[in-house]
Amino acid sequence: MDIIPDGSILSAAGFAVGAARGGLKKAAGEPDVALVVCDAPTSGAGLFTVNRFAAAPVQWCRRHLPSPRVRAVAVNSGNANACTGEQGDRDVQRTAELIADLVGCAPEDVCVASTGIIGHPLPMDKIEAGLRESHLRIGTGEAHARAAERAIMTTDTRPKAAAVRSAVDGRTFHVGGMAKGSGMIAPNMATMLAFVTTDALVAPGDLREFLREAAGQTFNRITVDGDSSTNDSVIALAGGRSGVNVTPDGPGAAEFRQALLAVMDSLALQIVRDGEGATKVIEVIVEGAADADSAHRVARAVAESQLVKCAVYGCDPNWGRIVCAIGYSGAAVQPHTTTVHIGPVCVFHNGMPTGADARAPMHADTVAVRINLGIGFGRGRVRSCDLTREYVRINAEYPT
Amino acid sequence: MDIIPDGSILSAAGFAVGAARGGLKKAAGEPDVALVVCDAPTSGAGLFTVNRFAAAPVQWCRRHLPSPRVRAVAVNSGNANACTGEQGDRDVQRTAELIADLVGCAPEDVCVASTGIIGHPLPMDKIEAGLRESHLRIGTGEAHARAAERAIMTTDTRPKAAAVRSAVDGRTFHVGGMAKGSGMIAPNMATMLAFVTTDALVAPGDLREFLREAAGQTFNRITVDGDSSTNDSVIALAGGRSGVNVTPDGPGAAEFRQALLAVMDSLALQIVRDGEGATKVIEVIVEGAADADSAHRVARAVAESQLVKCAVYGCDPNWGRIVCAIGYSGAAVQPHTTTVHIGPVCVFHNGMPTGADARAPMHADTVAVRINLGIGFGRGRVRSCDLTREYVRINAEYPT
Repeated sequence: MDIIPDGSILSAAGFAVGAARGGLKKAAGEPDVALVVCDAPTSGAGLFTVNRFAAAPVQWCRRHLPSPRVRAVAVNSGNANACTGEQGDRDVQRTAELIADLVGCAPEDVCVASTGIIGHPLPMDKIEAGLRESHLRIGTGEAHARAAERAIMTTDTRPKAAAVRSAVDGRTFHVGGMAKGSGMIAPNMATMLAFVTTDALVAPGDLREFLREAAGQTFNRITVDGDSSTNDSVIALAGGRSGVNVTPDGPGAAEFRQALLAVMDSLALQIVRDGEGATKVIEVIVEGAADADSAHRVARAVAESQLVKCAVYGCDPNWGRIVCAIGYSGAAVQPHTTTVHIGPVCVFHNGMPTGADARAPMHADTVAVRINLGIGFGRGRVRSCDLTREYVRINAEYPT
Repeated sequence: MDIIPDGSILSAAGFAVGAARGGLKKAAGEPDVALVVCDAPTSGAGLFTVNRFAAAPVQWCRRHLPSPRVRAVAVNSGNANACTGEQGDRDVQRTAELIADLVGCAPEDVCVASTGIIGHPLPMDKIEAGLRESHLRIGTGEAHARAAERAIMTTDTRPKAAAVRSAVDGRTFHVGGMAKGSGMIAPNMATMLAFVTTDALVAPGDLREFLREAAGQTFNRITVDGDSSTNDSVIALAGGRSGVNVTPDGPGAAEFRQALLAVMDSLALQIVRDGEGATKVIEVIVEGAADADSAHRVARAVAESQLVKCAVYGCDPNWGRIVCAIGYSGAAVQPHTTTVHIGPVCVFHNGMPTGADARAPMHADTVAVRINLGIGFGRGRVRSCDLTREYVRINAEYPT
């Protein structure tokens, strides 16, 4: 498997994208609508927020995915179309009908995703103008991909894309994707939208299982602020243009898993690194837990601790806060078998501080916290970012 | 029942306190050791952190409480004596022995509580000097109470005390207390120490039950940052000097419950109001939930949401973040029966935004969020504070 430098959602054959400005975002000139088009009916699957107030577009996609005949994905930023009642449902339907008209398919073959402010009706005139313009601009060049990546951003400071190339029995296939994140990021997704394409052929139900498995190790293992949004969506499209056929137990399954995981892992890391106000990534690896679930609980408690996040911001190797979070995680832990490293430095060994100086690894771009609970063989990893004054500024001043 | 203006832990007869500087806290001249002494063997009970890395003094108290013969409580700030291994246990034992010598009792009749930095051995010379000095200064005046309240503070900006007077069959009794809080405050306690005294007579086991019940509505219903510390302790002492005898089912139970709840509620509110960097209190009241547990989950999710807390700091009536937190709380909720008020303003009615302007109530000292889930009769309340740049500054720069 190779990483494709500057790869994108267009690295897989069979897809085109267009983006335009409908006028939903405040920043003048910024694109805020994007359209992904498949060149033929395509296998599609999705994973969505667990939030009980799921937005109208999420409910639409849940109804229609998995599907063997997806033709397009319409995305807008600036407005989440969440808590908008029946009007919200009608607006999604109208959006799907519009795209169906443009690309020549049924409305239910169109996926819709939205991100932005909650509780305001979609300005349909702007959405419509933006989507028509996006359709006119559709193409497969690098500039097309970059414009779409920008169009789905909200408080993201940079676009997020990744792609890999792999092969099965000498035949090459690709997996590529784009994502937006920033705030409201928590396990079980977030204000996170991600779109993944592949030119491998994967049946809709299988695609969903591959997606679920990979999300369990990537998007569901990151947290910016513990808030799970109303709009989180990961949508995967498998067009099959490479001629590589993938089934869960057949040849190619391992290669496809690896490729999908690599793309989603890269996107997840990019989301955390660009967390609102973040200056550093925190990677918490837990080993020696009673089981994987315990490991994940401990990793999540440490990665989400406001006090740990502030200490990382301040470059302070405050292992006491790490140990405290381990203790209240709810997992089975015991002090006298617990060991904590910050980077390469062991700061806490079998329940006692070592006194070692861990200031140096606190200055790294990624602060690695490794915890061994000394109980069993469960492993888990959660990635997060630091909590900064800038995070508070962004979220205290976000206009409603 | 009357609130006693400027009441304190000394409002109940039979107790004296002393405080002194041992030199554990950095700020010059600040007292950091306090001693509460009972004039006779006294009924004592405690509640302690659920953190699995409970500090040595917590483990000591758990072993010896409830007890019918408590004689003293020794408290220090500046050092938590947590994650200090066997040395930590020996230091608690030594502390108890010292006080036992001074007041004339057995070491197990002495409760010990510590708060401050985790993982550093207690500087026993400073503790000992501070406790000896505290013992010399013991008294029952207002100045004594104020000095003890200051001595237990860490990043608290002001002392916290409360007291009430009540009567059973014409006989007056008192309940008073002091607390420290600030950071690491979460349900099931926090870096929170609270000490409550009463001159009612309550048997140790009963006292623990009364305490548990009141904590369930007060200290376990506040959150500053979701971090539960290694040292949280609430210790209650019931001396009986008022001649009022209280049993759970006998006369006086209702009056005692009410008095204890009032004191603990006041202390809990003072802790939240003085949360690290806080400028405002957030009070989340949930009604119409399937049951009390669901109500509490929803209230806690909203009160702990970093995004809600930032919005309150920014005086932004961002009900979308409130609704989002309701949705991911994990409780049974449904959009079309959910209604949200901010102060007196209904911002969200049966799943739809009302468009009403809620900016004015966002500027109050206490921002009241009232949520009706429209499902059942479960009620719950959680109090929290806003998340500010000052919180981040305090916790990024806290020295280890």
